[in-house]
Amino acid sequence: MNAEEIFRNIQRKKSFLCIGLDTDFKKIPRMLLDAEYPVFEFNKRIIDATADLAIAYKPNLAFYEGLGAAGYMSLEMTMNYLRSNYPDQFIIADAKRGDIGNTSSMYAHAFFRTLDADAITLSPYMGEDSITPFLEFKGKWVILLALTSNQGSEDFQWLQLHDQRHLFEQVIAGSMKWGTVNNMMFVVGATRAEALEKIRKLIPEHFLLVPGVGSQGGSLEEVVRYGMNDRCGLIVNASRSIIYADVTNRFEDAARDEAARLQKLMQASLQARNLI
Amino acid sequence: MNAEEIFRNIQRKKSFLCIGLDTDFKKIPRMLLDAEYPVFEFNKRIIDATADLAIAYKPNLAFYEGLGAAGYMSLEMTMNYLRSNYPDQFIIADAKRGDIGNTSSMYAHAFFRTLDADAITLSPYMGEDSITPFLEFKGKWVILLALTSNQGSEDFQWLQLHDQRHLFEQVIAGSMKWGTVNNMMFVVGATRAEALEKIRKLIPEHFLLVPGVGSQGGSLEEVVRYGMNDRCGLIVNASRSIIYADVTNRFEDAARDEAARLQKLMQASLQARNLI
Repeated sequence: MNAEEIFRNIQRKKSFLCIGLDTDFKKIPRMLLDAEYPVFEFNKRIIDATADLAIAYKPNLAFYEGLGAAGYMSLEMTMNYLRSNYPDQFIIADAKRGDIGNTSSMYAHAFFRTLDADAITLSPYMGEDSITPFLEFKGKWVILLALTSNQGSEDFQWLQLHDQRHLFEQVIAGSMKWGTVNNMMFVVGATRAEALEKIRKLIPEHFLLVPGVGSQGGSLEEVVRYGMNDRCGLIVNASRSIIYADVTNRFEDAARDEAARLQKLMQASLQARNLI
Repeated sequence: MNAEEIFRNIQRKKSFLCIGLDTDFKKIPRMLLDAEYPVFEFNKRIIDATADLAIAYKPNLAFYEGLGAAGYMSLEMTMNYLRSNYPDQFIIADAKRGDIGNTSSMYAHAFFRTLDADAITLSPYMGEDSITPFLEFKGKWVILLALTSNQGSEDFQWLQLHDQRHLFEQVIAGSMKWGTVNNMMFVVGATRAEALEKIRKLIPEHFLLVPGVGSQGGSLEEVVRYGMNDRCGLIVNASRSIIYADVTNRFEDAARDEAARLQKLMQASLQARNLI
């Protein structure tokens, strides 16, 4: 999927919502615990309840690895289910990997071939040769951590360099030569939305993956104000606020309601910019 | 395992060698491909051939994830084999993870409970709350990437900050308050051994995990010169140069020969410092 196809999906669905499948075994409604793969069963129901409102799904690998081989099975089944039933969805493996070249090649194979994800999130700390093996896969995307949504982002990402810029700005600038607007995006958290303005000056055309709206308190309105470009340029993720909107047997309806609420806000912002 | 116990293992075995189990399915001797879990079978034989010469093993997660659920099974079996047969080995899950707090808790559970590793490598980019969930596990270790052994380490780790220090120095200094010498180590690559001198001034007492000796060309002699402290303070890793020393049915002997060569050099350096 290239950037233009993602934009067309956004226009068609009037949404730039990504739903994070951070599926915690301990938070799954009890009625599903009898299923052979409860995590997959939960994901399947969340996906069926929300797929018309979202353009992307983002399973976070931690939640599957935590369950060992059974968790990995649930992840594979979730990916296959999305591919088979909702082929227009952009699937992001939220893995935050990054290792030396020959090891990154193994990860790239794992995520892009074995799992057939469209994109993977990567940490920039180890530099170019930890990232480029992923960019060799045609039609696949690297989503590089630039400015994350957590408290700890203050520790290093906001460090000031000798030339006054911040580390996250240099991560973006330094990585520009590695890929293109058709195979690289950047993670920029919603919790410090004013930084989006600075980032948009550096990269006016790239897609940004924006977590932190929802449980982490970021404002969708501010993300749109500072981050939207003339091809939308935003994929906004919500995880817990959607998938755990309710933990009873109403969970599918509640997830759909929260996803619909965000989709309506997104539709309004796309209309205000004349993008739909 | 605490720092003193690691040092006692080093003294007893006259070695500070860690063997990296970067087991690539495509490089396993053909005679093993008939086994139900060839990756585990290879690991088991490498471990049996080298365990008296090493104090630690370090499976790199990429090589297991690349094979999907079957790879994960091979990893679990390898961990269980080490635990049952060589309980004095320090097991490092080379995962280079790092995510927001609630997600890091999931990873911590995956690596320290499900897999029962002694230590995990983590990327510092997301800061304190991405690391501290791992430090809550008593007797377990975080090994934070500081200065890695790959070419890409130049891109960001060597960036000069506004106060003239480099990013990797601030990663070490900034993380000092998170843990102790009994639950934190740092990855410092052997390929720029002169940086070890700078790092030893910052952290005279911490253990360092040093990759890059062997296939990546780092010098064990220089690592010892700049990095050894009065409790050794070094765990030096070699992966490919040991496990792929030979790819025929002689692979166990060849792996043992290369591990023994390194162990003898290590023994000499421990004797020269009067640590054994």
